[in-house]
Amino acid sequence: MVITEVSLRKFTTDVFLAMGCNAAHAQLAADVLLKADLRGIDSHGVARLTGYVRLWEKKRINAQPNIQVVHQTATTATVDGDAGLGLVTAPFAMQLAIEKAKQFGSGWVAVRNSNHFGIAGYHALMAVEQDMIGFAVTNASPLVVPTFSNERMLGTNPICYGFPAGQYPPVVIDMATSAAANGKLEIAQRAGNAVPEGWIQDKDGGYTTDPFALKSGGALLPLGSDRDHGSHKGFGLASVVDILSGVLSGANYGPWVPPFVAFLEPSANPVGEGIGHFVGAMRIDGFRPADDFKSHMDNWITRFKSASRIDEQQGVVIPGEPEYEAEIDRRQNGIPLVDAVVADLNEVAGKLNVSPLTT
Amino acid sequence: MVITEVSLRKFTTDVFLAMGCNAAHAQLAADVLLKADLRGIDSHGVARLTGYVRLWEKKRINAQPNIQVVHQTATTATVDGDAGLGLVTAPFAMQLAIEKAKQFGSGWVAVRNSNHFGIAGYHALMAVEQDMIGFAVTNASPLVVPTFSNERMLGTNPICYGFPAGQYPPVVIDMATSAAANGKLEIAQRAGNAVPEGWIQDKDGGYTTDPFALKSGGALLPLGSDRDHGSHKGFGLASVVDILSGVLSGANYGPWVPPFVAFLEPSANPVGEGIGHFVGAMRIDGFRPADDFKSHMDNWITRFKSASRIDEQQGVVIPGEPEYEAEIDRRQNGIPLVDAVVADLNEVAGKLNVSPLTT
Repeated sequence: MVITEVSLRKFTTDVFLAMGCNAAHAQLAADVLLKADLRGIDSHGVARLTGYVRLWEKKRINAQPNIQVVHQTATTATVDGDAGLGLVTAPFAMQLAIEKAKQFGSGWVAVRNSNHFGIAGYHALMAVEQDMIGFAVTNASPLVVPTFSNERMLGTNPICYGFPAGQYPPVVIDMATSAAANGKLEIAQRAGNAVPEGWIQDKDGGYTTDPFALKSGGALLPLGSDRDHGSHKGFGLASVVDILSGVLSGANYGPWVPPFVAFLEPSANPVGEGIGHFVGAMRIDGFRPADDFKSHMDNWITRFKSASRIDEQQGVVIPGEPEYEAEIDRRQNGIPLVDAVVADLNEVAGKLNVSPLTT
Repeated sequence: MVITEVSLRKFTTDVFLAMGCNAAHAQLAADVLLKADLRGIDSHGVARLTGYVRLWEKKRINAQPNIQVVHQTATTATVDGDAGLGLVTAPFAMQLAIEKAKQFGSGWVAVRNSNHFGIAGYHALMAVEQDMIGFAVTNASPLVVPTFSNERMLGTNPICYGFPAGQYPPVVIDMATSAAANGKLEIAQRAGNAVPEGWIQDKDGGYTTDPFALKSGGALLPLGSDRDHGSHKGFGLASVVDILSGVLSGANYGPWVPPFVAFLEPSANPVGEGIGHFVGAMRIDGFRPADDFKSHMDNWITRFKSASRIDEQQGVVIPGEPEYEAEIDRRQNGIPLVDAVVADLNEVAGKLNVSPLTT
């Protein structure tokens, strides 16, 4: 099923309204999810909407949060999300970071007591639109092992940096710190295909290419896959994200991070509140005139695109460019949804008295 | 040869003094190099000293730089290093970031027109000692390919984050964004051993385990090694470092970054000045009381150290802990130097009328 941006946006907004979100929050949350679908990051778009609804049904998401700044200096702050949608609390935090950056050059905001915030790129791009460098990270349900362990201790903890360019679209690095994203594993599971070695390990920490190993006690591997190839670096990066998002904000961290899926219960002895995010913004013209920066960014991009190729058919991919192209295409031609997602969404819509999806 | 910290520090300071550095700069530059040797990062310590001397002989390092802040806001700045030692310009920049953070919560400083800055961890730890989160990155001589390319476009571009803890030593993530550091390759070359697949590629972008492939036109691979295992993420991280260090500061970037080795000439058409760094500091108490943070850091560390093990003999390694233990050991028992390094150092010392190394 291919659905227009307008229809999907209305449907998604209606679901959030039915959960009790106010109009501004419903529109914002829908905007964050739609941005993922438009940019071709299907695993983080409306496919997750029913997950949010199930957490709300379990009272783990508060649709009417009182989001508050609980601690701040001129350029730093901690926000308590009051168990609200991360789709709402993270943009709130980034807006605060941007205001601080406008006044003082940079702004950095930690968020606790939150939930899954969608794609990190949405938040970083808020800063990029203001001629700032945007930064966004979040911790997440423990699925990833540290090097040498067979215990799930970390989430896929994404890191995102966004940089404005001139003639080119922004450069956006938005990456899980695991070797493979969970979404890729799900694709292999649906197809029944083996996954490359180095993506996952079995419950004993042994070698496996079975995409279902995660469901029988296995785990995702950090970026680098094994010690020889730098898995300690992927573990280190995931740790940075966990510390900034969880330890700094007062959220949970490590194995205490509450699971995204509603059928798993959060820890009975949490070390903080909810999950955590950390976002930041730095004014480009705090370092050099923005036009100088952007023209050098264009030069950087041009030069990397022209780097010599191993295979003539495949050039260097500038981070963020495929997503930008998907966005242009999908705004015009609509967003493809797989049948299972459509059925899932319509089932939830029925329960909430929301009109079903239409093309 | 095992040499005491005191002797090695005096020797190193004397070499910098002989280059014409003032006393404060010579002591600081020696302190940065010694810190690498003490922490067991031998590739970045005094083993590099003769490299700095050779660049100075070629007039590519200015021993008497006029380091200047050329642009700033309350919490951001750009520093021109006047072609000085990165061992001096980077601490200058971090000190400025710390001062800004003391006043406004955070501080971020880009450096252009600099040279190799030693271990990133030194600079990040300056902030950690002030109960701040420290951040330090630098671009470097192009040795690493982007995914899908066989052209060296990026340095091993390290990323470092440092976090203070309470009872434990600071957590310090200090990592090259390539699959393997160049130093590991050099060890394999000396031993004549094949390297694991996924560290390097040959000049055509093909598979190789030959440690000498880099000397015949090959290149280092980004963290992740190949596209299936996330090399686009390693490429993305190296790009973040290059943009923050080079494009933002007005230094060179990508393939224009001047080589560290004196026998290779810099580009005749540079896009900026020298190499670039980017450092930052954020006050912990800008987010939550520092004691709360540190006690949760201790809890984080304790929990990760107790994560279940694949092999009973090998627990999870907390980033920064092995280096901390090396520092305690080497301060007490001295610093081991391999014969080739000692010979190289004494040769340079002879030219500069500096007394040779003594235990």
